[in-house]
Amino acid sequence: MPTPLLSRRDIDFLIFDWLRIDDLFARERFAEHSRETVTAVIDLAERLTEAEFLPHYKDADRDEPKLRADGVEVHPAVRAAVRAFSEAGLAAGPFDASLGGLQLPELVHTAVMAYSMAANVATTAYPMLSIGNSRLLSTFGTPAQIEAFVRPQVEGRALGTMCLSEPQAGSSLADIATRAEADGEGALGRRYRITGNKMWISGGDHDITDNIVHLVLAKIVGDDGKLPSGTAGISLFAVPKLLVEDGSAERNDISVAGLNHKMGYRGTANCLLNFGEGVRHRPGGRAGAVGYLVGEPGRGLAAMFHMMNEARIAIGLGAAALGYRAHRLSVDYARERRQGRPAGARAGSPVAIIDHPDVRRMLLAQKTYSEGALALVFYCARLIDEARTATDENTRAQALSCLEILTPVAKAWPSEWGLAANDLAIQIHGGYGYTRDFDVEQLYRDNRLNPIHEGTTGIQAIDLVGRKIRRSGDGALKLLSERVEATCRKAAAAGLSTQAQALTHDWVRIGDIAEDLLQRDHQVAIWNATHFLSAFGHAVVAWLWLDQAATLEPDADDLATARFAQAKRRCCRFFFETEVPKIATWLQLVADNSDVAAACPPEFFINE
Amino acid sequence: MPTPLLSRRDIDFLIFDWLRIDDLFARERFAEHSRETVTAVIDLAERLTEAEFLPHYKDADRDEPKLRADGVEVHPAVRAAVRAFSEAGLAAGPFDASLGGLQLPELVHTAVMAYSMAANVATTAYPMLSIGNSRLLSTFGTPAQIEAFVRPQVEGRALGTMCLSEPQAGSSLADIATRAEADGEGALGRRYRITGNKMWISGGDHDITDNIVHLVLAKIVGDDGKLPSGTAGISLFAVPKLLVEDGSAERNDISVAGLNHKMGYRGTANCLLNFGEGVRHRPGGRAGAVGYLVGEPGRGLAAMFHMMNEARIAIGLGAAALGYRAHRLSVDYARERRQGRPAGARAGSPVAIIDHPDVRRMLLAQKTYSEGALALVFYCARLIDEARTATDENTRAQALSCLEILTPVAKAWPSEWGLAANDLAIQIHGGYGYTRDFDVEQLYRDNRLNPIHEGTTGIQAIDLVGRKIRRSGDGALKLLSERVEATCRKAAAAGLSTQAQALTHDWVRIGDIAEDLLQRDHQVAIWNATHFLSAFGHAVVAWLWLDQAATLEPDADDLATARFAQAKRRCCRFFFETEVPKIATWLQLVADNSDVAAACPPEFFINE
Repeated sequence: MPTPLLSRRDIDFLIFDWLRIDDLFARERFAEHSRETVTAVIDLAERLTEAEFLPHYKDADRDEPKLRADGVEVHPAVRAAVRAFSEAGLAAGPFDASLGGLQLPELVHTAVMAYSMAANVATTAYPMLSIGNSRLLSTFGTPAQIEAFVRPQVEGRALGTMCLSEPQAGSSLADIATRAEADGEGALGRRYRITGNKMWISGGDHDITDNIVHLVLAKIVGDDGKLPSGTAGISLFAVPKLLVEDGSAERNDISVAGLNHKMGYRGTANCLLNFGEGVRHRPGGRAGAVGYLVGEPGRGLAAMFHMMNEARIAIGLGAAALGYRAHRLSVDYARERRQGRPAGARAGSPVAIIDHPDVRRMLLAQKTYSEGALALVFYCARLIDEARTATDENTRAQALSCLEILTPVAKAWPSEWGLAANDLAIQIHGGYGYTRDFDVEQLYRDNRLNPIHEGTTGIQAIDLVGRKIRRSGDGALKLLSERVEATCRKAAAAGLSTQAQALTHDWVRIGDIAEDLLQRDHQVAIWNATHFLSAFGHAVVAWLWLDQAATLEPDADDLATARFAQAKRRCCRFFFETEVPKIATWLQLVADNSDVAAACPPEFFINE
Repeated sequence: MPTPLLSRRDIDFLIFDWLRIDDLFARERFAEHSRETVTAVIDLAERLTEAEFLPHYKDADRDEPKLRADGVEVHPAVRAAVRAFSEAGLAAGPFDASLGGLQLPELVHTAVMAYSMAANVATTAYPMLSIGNSRLLSTFGTPAQIEAFVRPQVEGRALGTMCLSEPQAGSSLADIATRAEADGEGALGRRYRITGNKMWISGGDHDITDNIVHLVLAKIVGDDGKLPSGTAGISLFAVPKLLVEDGSAERNDISVAGLNHKMGYRGTANCLLNFGEGVRHRPGGRAGAVGYLVGEPGRGLAAMFHMMNEARIAIGLGAAALGYRAHRLSVDYARERRQGRPAGARAGSPVAIIDHPDVRRMLLAQKTYSEGALALVFYCARLIDEARTATDENTRAQALSCLEILTPVAKAWPSEWGLAANDLAIQIHGGYGYTRDFDVEQLYRDNRLNPIHEGTTGIQAIDLVGRKIRRSGDGALKLLSERVEATCRKAAAAGLSTQAQALTHDWVRIGDIAEDLLQRDHQVAIWNATHFLSAFGHAVVAWLWLDQAATLEPDADDLATARFAQAKRRCCRFFFETEVPKIATWLQLVADNSDVAAACPPEFFINE
């Protein structure tokens, strides 16, 4: 029997013991749920992803989506898996019952997606993007738009995408040039004709569902025929592949200009889409993709950021899940593979490589990175539930505040350190791990995307320093600090005072440096933002490790429970001994705020 | 015009100004050489690798070697390139004139290989392995063996391999099970029949040359029919694909059991070879691959280590070259790609991404990693020249001593940090860098092998701590420390006293900890060996950066010379500000020598 994708004991600990999901069942939105329903959903996710997502992991990597005359053809197993996911109701998890959704807590939906991503992150991209799309439309769309575009996605009859980037404008959305020209009004709201090119569109075309709902950022052409400049001119449009307003299912004016061939995530069709070419498809007899304005004109970016924050946490989840699975495969390999002897020994049989100290160091590093990353994302999911459904307003506001400052960390930390776990998995497997015969090779390639998309690590750092700390002041940081202090008190009482002291010390320093950052000129403040993100991220994960360790009971009577608790405590100790010392080094770099890189003359890089 | 593969100004600085190659021309072995001949050889390498190695970089990655009925077929451009390399005499660089070699200093040969590896590391593997094979045979073979097996390789009529690993024995050579049975004696020495499986054999079969000379580690069957245990029973054999002893060119009993499909290095045919199957080829009418004993029975591993040390430095060179090229591509991209605006600015045209502080930070990190790695390997090459040709014995012994302690660093540091430069290259390129349309994607995949083969980073750490420091005492470390002190004096005089003081401080600490390591029990000493290697490697590279910076004249009249010097000084400052602080963190981990990983109960990793 293959090793389960994730540790169910860990998942159950996170959800039930650590993040106390029971508290949610008393709330109206989750009144239909209980430990039993939640367990059943996670059981289902575990079974379905092992049966439908895992088996084609390598096949869909080898056999990439193909661009045919009439669109993109994906691997048949990808098609079957995404359909099975929908049919089982897993794509409907977080949605309202009125839309056919399960009204699951975000925490449970996150556990479902963790299994799916651990099994096959490229295949999961289709439902993941569709869920993000549907959430955005549910929040900002009209009832008619929700009925036309969200319901089919929840029911599995359509999938959705996010169309932000353009070839000339990746991270810089102010510079998008896609045009929207007014084209009347109908049941689905104000109609526009969209023209432009959208790059990096995952799930941009496929043959999994007939219809695809694209959410497109574009600029409405002004009376002077020009596009408004900057981000304030960006609007959001729902642009379906098949037009549904009149029931015609006519093809919209959208075509696939090409597929991107990536290092990993190869099962996901990643497209350059042309809107409004007017060559193959001319809805209503003329060029221009028909799109429906979602929300107010000029408010597109704000709406998209609503989705983006969720997407960023989802990226962090995928990165954590990929590192997590690689760790588990590494453990299996290290226990089976016999090679070498203990240092100094010259005779005797070869030992399992898990007996070599450096292999154990790598395994513990992986375990702390990947379990730490998963705990971080689950913690954020719990904050989302709290921000949405807590009974008093103050609790909701505080949860939202913590969530906002943690979002860049939840995106970047798993992307960097989950990937480090994947890198170590190759190293533990040695030459075998470098071959395509072993999943760890592909898990690494897949995860390498995560520090890039939905905002690179450098952009998360600027978001943290420039927006979350500088623009919002230190309110969120203070709220978070209170939570850290509470953990340190709990930890000290649980025999973990060494770690509690170390964390308290680092956290005070973070507060001092955040004060400094508030005083600095904006341009100067971000010089070493990435180092601040590194320090802050490690401090956050150290806090969550300490909180987990302090929650668990290492002296439980049940042997497996005690071992689980002791293993978590060992991870906590490892993280504090080996990783936490890096925090001071990074913080010193932020405190010094050297201009050595920022002010380096570009001509010093001239290639001669 | 494409950017040159490496900075010729940098190469010339390293060879002529920093490592003073002129001193070598006075020595008998290099009497035919001068600045002019050396320049001509490097010119040739630069031109030839750009023309013959670079153009098929992607093609040979896409179109991997194929296993046909009669052996392995490589991409035609690989075949042409390796032949052109030989025909130009570049594969003959380091060999004696009596064998048709150029008697080049190792330093110059290293520069030649740096260009070749930067252009196409997978294609370069064929001549690189052949050169290592020929060197080993030149040192340990009989004159007849040298004539039969080395001369054809130097002349480009054959290529060579190294056959060490077996499927069940990768890093642990004591456990190899390939058998050698006596089969008489002839002009090429004692003949044996070889039977066994050899894994990970790069260039194990191909259609570039007719003959292939395999150097195979095997154990001679004892009178009791058993194989000797441990490494002392390992012997070395030359096993040609075509038997040449009797001029018959009969096929030897060697077959390709399969090709390994790797993440990168795909242009190199990497084989599982079966020796002595007796199915397709039965030399002299019976099973068993014919091999000739090289050197003494039971001394095979010692001979192979002679080669292995050179191979390890060659791996470091490849890792440095791959990082170096990725940095140069990143500079080009960062200067061309326009995206975003300075922090705080909301209007104006997008700027080149090199204007963003975090991009400059990544570029400087890449530059210090890759130029630092290249300098380290060139420094080792200069030590090889010194160890072989210095006029007094003491100088030779000291150079050898320094070389031995630096070898694990020259292998591991470029592999880890050159790879980090490749990783940053993907990050700087954003989504584009993650596609196979850009070379940085492949450069990363290629370089990911280097921390694995020829001894993983963990094994280099054990070599450094367990063998180079513990077994040899601290003599080599003291010699190295004297060189570091000399650099610090020179640096202080050149206005770099901040850096000189920091390095002196770290180096004293390294000496203290090395003393500690000498006292510890062997098994305990290696618990945190990898952290010691990390610290020691960073300290070595910091020393070489400081030495380079102190050598250069930032106030030169010539503008380009001054800019080059200033850029190197900026790199030195960056490395000391940003990287050197990590040394203390790693050293503290070694000093504490926690058992948190080493003593972690394996059951804590059980997958449930």
